[in-house]
Amino acid sequence: MARNPERRAALLDAAIEVMADEGARGLTFRAVDARAGVPTGTSSNYFTDRDQLLSQVGERIFVRLTPEAGALDTAMLPEPSRDLVVELMRWLARRMAAERSCYLGLFELRLEATRRPELRARLTEVLRGDLDENIRLHLAAGMPGDEDTVLLLYFALTGLLVDHFTVPGLHDARELDTLIETVVNRIVPAA
Amino acid sequence: MARNPERRAALLDAAIEVMADEGARGLTFRAVDARAGVPTGTSSNYFTDRDQLLSQVGERIFVRLTPEAGALDTAMLPEPSRDLVVELMRWLARRMAAERSCYLGLFELRLEATRRPELRARLTEVLRGDLDENIRLHLAAGMPGDEDTVLLLYFALTGLLVDHFTVPGLHDARELDTLIETVVNRIVPAA
Repeated sequence: MARNPERRAALLDAAIEVMADEGARGLTFRAVDARAGVPTGTSSNYFTDRDQLLSQVGERIFVRLTPEAGALDTAMLPEPSRDLVVELMRWLARRMAAERSCYLGLFELRLEATRRPELRARLTEVLRGDLDENIRLHLAAGMPGDEDTVLLLYFALTGLLVDHFTVPGLHDARELDTLIETVVNRIVPAA
Repeated sequence: MARNPERRAALLDAAIEVMADEGARGLTFRAVDARAGVPTGTSSNYFTDRDQLLSQVGERIFVRLTPEAGALDTAMLPEPSRDLVVELMRWLARRMAAERSCYLGLFELRLEATRRPELRARLTEVLRGDLDENIRLHLAAGMPGDEDTVLLLYFALTGLLVDHFTVPGLHDARELDTLIETVVNRIVPAA
């Protein structure tokens, strides 16, 4: 197996773009090579088979969607409040929009996970870790609400963002920022 | 074009199963013929091309996921209350579970819609119609809450069900029925 880590990351990023454009089934070594602009056969030096490629694409998506440590310094946040939760959710939605291919790729992975038990186990583990970390941060920062508040925010934001990315005209009477405010105001207690 | 409507519906149901098992990219005339147990070439007598097949699969999914008129006789419902909303959401989730392939197919269609403007327009129209109908029924039945209550329920149920169908172990500390109760109790006012 070839070991250049930057080349591997570039191939995985190309794979994410292929998946967003063509769906998980369109993910072939040949398509990845073409998208990355490397000679045909390069990907097959980096990944033993399609299953391994798919699993590493998943890990790469998780890395890209998870904020770097320090991207959000909770010690620097203003006083905890519902308005601050609104701002944080808007920041999160902007991050997802900036990583649109990754966010759509995550839904491709979810659908693939219905067919692949190992991918499902790994996806469950990563999503659970993210959710637990969000609960921990929310409570540690003294934000209003409890553990179920964060669970509700997670469910509602998933529903809102999947509409926003797949059928953006569905709620076009309201801006995304306004919708997020509505969601947070209905779920998070005032103080 | 062949015109036998029962055969057409059977081919579309086979196509939904293919899509749930293989993803939208796996949807070929040959795969549909094989799944339906009909001679190779049958599907191509019913659909001009893959785009038309995909669009009719979408319509078939919408039909199967929409309750028949009378499936829920609102005149027969008990007094409107938050507990009744819990029961209705549980009923809805059971319907979706009974039509698992359709519900997963709807997510395949959402992802396909990011790549196909006509499918996106039609999917937007159908989802908007469903949401408006849910809002109308909620208010007409005198259920507690307003239009945004129904919007929040729709977002949160989407997030909950996409987890339930793709990564069912994510919330395994709680039964689906209990999760639904938590969601409704947090979103719908007591009365």
